Amino acid sequence: MHEPRTIERITVGGAREIDRDVVVEEAPLVLTARGREVAVVMRTPGHDLELIRGLLHAEGVAAPSLRQAEPDVVDADLDEAALVRRALTSTAACGVCGRAAIADLETRARAIDAEWRLDAAAIARFPDTLRAAQATFDATGGLHGAALIDRGGALVAAREDVGRHNAVDKLVGWGLGAGIAFADHALVLSGRLGYELAQKAVLAGLPFVIAVSAPSTLAIDVCERFRVTGCGFVRAGRINVYSHGWRIVP
Amino acid sequence: MHEPRTIERITVGGAREIDRDVVVEEAPLVLTARGREVAVVMRTPGHDLELIRGLLHAEGVAAPSLRQAEPDVVDADLDEAALVRRALTSTAACGVCGRAAIADLETRARAIDAEWRLDAAAIARFPDTLRAAQATFDATGGLHGAALIDRGGALVAAREDVGRHNAVDKLVGWGLGAGIAFADHALVLSGRLGYELAQKAVLAGLPFVIAVSAPSTLAIDVCERFRVTGCGFVRAGRINVYSHGWRIVP
Repeated sequence: MHEPRTIERITVGGAREIDRDVVVEEAPLVLTARGREVAVVMRTPGHDLELIRGLLHAEGVAAPSLRQAEPDVVDADLDEAALVRRALTSTAACGVCGRAAIADLETRARAIDAEWRLDAAAIARFPDTLRAAQATFDATGGLHGAALIDRGGALVAAREDVGRHNAVDKLVGWGLGAGIAFADHALVLSGRLGYELAQKAVLAGLPFVIAVSAPSTLAIDVCERFRVTGCGFVRAGRINVYSHGWRIVP
Repeated sequence: MHEPRTIERITVGGAREIDRDVVVEEAPLVLTARGREVAVVMRTPGHDLELIRGLLHAEGVAAPSLRQAEPDVVDADLDEAALVRRALTSTAACGVCGRAAIADLETRARAIDAEWRLDAAAIARFPDTLRAAQATFDATGGLHGAALIDRGGALVAAREDVGRHNAVDKLVGWGLGAGIAFADHALVLSGRLGYELAQKAVLAGLPFVIAVSAPSTLAIDVCERFRVTGCGFVRAGRINVYSHGWRIVP
């Protein structure tokens, strides 16, 4: 369920030390129907048969015979048509399309070549900058936020949504329409940093992802591979750096 | 972005009062391709064109001409085939299938007829019961949790996942395999109560959903319609009741 990872812990105005952190595991689970691949779910490994049983139940597919064909593959003894009928054949949500997540992304994105750096003190302020822009969050406590911040540390745009992926999609959609240079911006997230959010940052070409909460293993792998500086638990003057810390000036 | 709703605020051992709360809005957005429906996204209304532009970008569909055809419909000037190619045609994640969310659920689920009640004091303890079971959460800070609790207030099962829907699917999948009577259990969530989680509770037949954080408008509507007692912000001896408070003994 979790893996040890080497990280840098930065305290603004203080220490910068290499440490070990325990990171929650995220990996694709493939659902096959009598051997044919029909869906991919990003999940924390464990209880995979229960996950698929519950997911199929919610899709109106009752009590199929399931077996763990491989560590990351569950096979259902169902005709593919039964699953197609319930529209369970898309992988739109994760974009994995049945191939390994990172290999898939390599066909669609390049490593970020931006070389500019940010002060640790500036990064530590980003969550407050986002929060100040989240007017609605204060009203309901129920919205995820995402913001783009420029190289000078100024807020460029912020978006909120009940879905955290939506907040990032809205922000990137705005930036595409406005024609901004994503390579000159940092993405700030009010919550966790999962695979899909890391993927969206890479596809947009954002060199920094600064999250208030925890990352997943696969999100870190994506940031590492595509040269994104990934930070988590950015709170109270402290920063956990999970990838490409060379972009951070202490 | 948010709506006022009438709720009951319960303080354990204290007041039970009717109040107004501001709830984040959640509603389906339909994406059409030259008039043909291709996908449904659950989102907080606002910045809809940016949302679709960003979503299509992440799916590798570049800069289509978009227009807001109706308040909850965005049309892309694209051949449906361009979207099918990127597998953006499923609504598996929300199960809406293009019809109104609740109308769709009415074809697949019944109102919960359980009449038993729970003490407010017991409900207020459920988040701690879940947290105690979330061993991994304590290690990584990155996992969502979900638990089933029986009528006596005892923990029956708990599951964790990087995805909050996955945690509930795992729990329901376990319950289906074990043959438990969902109608005699409460579902406890470590985070927010959104539409999809409310829908999964209804489909399983769970009469109580107790969330540590905020609900969405559509989640409340689902709980109201299908006779689920929905509680949010269950913290520090306080409970916000959003639907069917008659099941709660003060």
